[in-house]
Amino acid sequence: MSMRAPRGTADILPNEVKRWQYVESILKDICDRFNYDEIRTPLFEHTEVFQRGVGDSTDIVQKEMYTFEDRGGRSLTLRPEGTATVVRAFVENKLYGSPIQPVKLFYFMQLFRYERPQQGRMRQLNQFGVEVLGSADPSVDAEVIALAMTCYKELGLSSLKLVLNSLGDKESRQNHRKALVEHFSPYKDELCSDCQKRLNQNPLRILDCKTDRDHPAMKTAPSILDYLNEYSEQYFNQVKAYLDMMEIPYVLDQNLVRGLDYYNHTAFEIMSEAEGFGAITTLAGGGRYNGLTEELGGPNTPGIGFAMGLERLLMAIDAENIKLPIDSSVDCFFIAVGETAEKQASELVHKLRVNGIQVDKDYQGRKMKAQFKAADRLKAKYVIILGDNELEDDIVNVKNMKTGDQTEVPLTDLVKTMQAELLGGSQNE
Amino acid sequence: MSMRAPRGTADILPNEVKRWQYVESILKDICDRFNYDEIRTPLFEHTEVFQRGVGDSTDIVQKEMYTFEDRGGRSLTLRPEGTATVVRAFVENKLYGSPIQPVKLFYFMQLFRYERPQQGRMRQLNQFGVEVLGSADPSVDAEVIALAMTCYKELGLSSLKLVLNSLGDKESRQNHRKALVEHFSPYKDELCSDCQKRLNQNPLRILDCKTDRDHPAMKTAPSILDYLNEYSEQYFNQVKAYLDMMEIPYVLDQNLVRGLDYYNHTAFEIMSEAEGFGAITTLAGGGRYNGLTEELGGPNTPGIGFAMGLERLLMAIDAENIKLPIDSSVDCFFIAVGETAEKQASELVHKLRVNGIQVDKDYQGRKMKAQFKAADRLKAKYVIILGDNELEDDIVNVKNMKTGDQTEVPLTDLVKTMQAELLGGSQNE
Repeated sequence: MSMRAPRGTADILPNEVKRWQYVESILKDICDRFNYDEIRTPLFEHTEVFQRGVGDSTDIVQKEMYTFEDRGGRSLTLRPEGTATVVRAFVENKLYGSPIQPVKLFYFMQLFRYERPQQGRMRQLNQFGVEVLGSADPSVDAEVIALAMTCYKELGLSSLKLVLNSLGDKESRQNHRKALVEHFSPYKDELCSDCQKRLNQNPLRILDCKTDRDHPAMKTAPSILDYLNEYSEQYFNQVKAYLDMMEIPYVLDQNLVRGLDYYNHTAFEIMSEAEGFGAITTLAGGGRYNGLTEELGGPNTPGIGFAMGLERLLMAIDAENIKLPIDSSVDCFFIAVGETAEKQASELVHKLRVNGIQVDKDYQGRKMKAQFKAADRLKAKYVIILGDNELEDDIVNVKNMKTGDQTEVPLTDLVKTMQAELLGGSQNE
Repeated sequence: MSMRAPRGTADILPNEVKRWQYVESILKDICDRFNYDEIRTPLFEHTEVFQRGVGDSTDIVQKEMYTFEDRGGRSLTLRPEGTATVVRAFVENKLYGSPIQPVKLFYFMQLFRYERPQQGRMRQLNQFGVEVLGSADPSVDAEVIALAMTCYKELGLSSLKLVLNSLGDKESRQNHRKALVEHFSPYKDELCSDCQKRLNQNPLRILDCKTDRDHPAMKTAPSILDYLNEYSEQYFNQVKAYLDMMEIPYVLDQNLVRGLDYYNHTAFEIMSEAEGFGAITTLAGGGRYNGLTEELGGPNTPGIGFAMGLERLLMAIDAENIKLPIDSSVDCFFIAVGETAEKQASELVHKLRVNGIQVDKDYQGRKMKAQFKAADRLKAKYVIILGDNELEDDIVNVKNMKTGDQTEVPLTDLVKTMQAELLGGSQNE
């Protein structure tokens, strides 16, 4: 019997979850300020949502999908990426008809890719991302990039590199594609088998092949930037101008083509340059995908988005030695000694909790000393003690664990007293 | 091509997501006060985690699981319930060895059950739940029930019924089981085919059969409460005493047996009694499962938990006409007219956002009137206007949309001014 989590997946345990919660709260707060709304889509989709015909030459679609038939014989796929599911939801729910345009969305998603597991590469992975649908304004491209950079900045990361490219519009891409095929065809036999396939299917992706990166033909390959038509070039110039105004530095890389086939115009990646971060340096990637809504059965709507891996984000935070401000202490620990006190403690603990106070207690019938030890382990700020003496006088003893001060508090005043200590007295009983 | 969400799944769109976010924040806050920590487990598990041998006679395991083979030939199953995955994680990660005991966990999970979709019954559903592992103290049972009731209460629900039963310990259950088999065997041919199977596999579940509920033998069936041994009876009495002290009302129902096989001692369900809630009234259910850790390969550890469906929770909120306090307005809308102003607006908008202010803007090059309309649609509290006149004087006009007051603000003071208006001046530029 295999009672372990499946290979390439991991449990996120309480201590680690607090880091996730913190990171997610910051990302959500940033989306709030940028006025992006959350969307949630199903964990699986009909396989066609990800596999939309001959254009899908990427590794993710080719080899890495979790595809299965449900009991009704439908082919379903656990989502390997976020954009296609969000765009499918945008089309199906006719969000293009919403009076508020563009539609600015963010998401937290678990994704599934059947890869060889390694550090920073899981079979179940977590991504945060945004998608903006309904505007072809270059200020949106700049905003989306700015949002991504703000996320890393507010989490304290500083060793970052923003890499930017334009893939141009359809016309520019077609001309570039033709030039690429001409350029690489004479070397076909010297390229890896993947690139030999790419030469016909999607020659652009030869440019980011890791196997053939040192082939001499790479250096002399025609650059997309030389094939941008006037509209594409102006568009790209405006995106750069907006980034300059927002004082967001970037470097250009004409070989940045992104792993998914549906991008056009702006493409970008954010890398970590932190020492010790290892070989995998890409933290986030995104780009514009005008045309994808049509592929998914909707009206022609421009779109742009990015996604960032949360596992890698946490790795980068560690690589830069950033300590997230996580409070793992508990406000109160209630110590009760004796059977009657224990019963009464349950009532008082519940009363404190429903009145806004964080309290824990013993559940093992332990002695007072062991209960104090439990309070220490939980880093309790206050310990509330109810023993035989206190029971007789209808009081508890409240001990401030920081100062050591101990005060007698009448049972009837306990909630009010703890609220005043912990919530600044702002709540009423 | 099927570009719709798979049957039985649903997108949660921005307006609806706000309700989910609100509900989740309340539930998370309650867990915080009760000092329960979040755990996250993979979306799928090895199938054996849910299918642990002959004992699994429930519908979920029998008919409703999404089971598939991955590319490595492993049988994986999308999790149909939360408890088994949490207990698997507890065992695998040796949380039973943690110095803080018991281990008190909560989770938000998507679950997957291949059922006939209907209102309140989805193939992908969302549950919130808690599990406490490592204590066999009846005060834990009461606390877990109290936590569940607190969730509904703090969300404003009042038409609730808490139903309670004890399934006893192993000895009690065996004696009761024997009595049930004896009682129902003479009527075997009159029972439904499911119950005929249950008679051998798990006769307890005959008691909550919806087909046979009116069979005369049901009324005279032996009650588990008559078969509780002394330990089980005392345990149950203490749970009830704790609930009484916390002033949590309940009704006893000896036919409450729960749909999963691993329960013992305390079992409970929380129903909605709201008018118009329809036939499905169960909001949450849970119980004690001492012994499950052993089935999953760990040391014998007592456990108890509950799960509540979030779709049904939201339905119950609607059925009781509760209006959740959701603010859908945006703080500022930035109106820029003219190309130069638009460029500068992007910079100012970004500056406001990274300084804590929620701002949106136009991305379509619309006229001023249309931009004011967009601000209205977003229910903007303030509108910031940058036109040709303002550009010349290095100012913006800030309009308070509630009072109609309009003030000129120097560009250099904009962040400070808006912080003072919106954040009570507590943040510095």
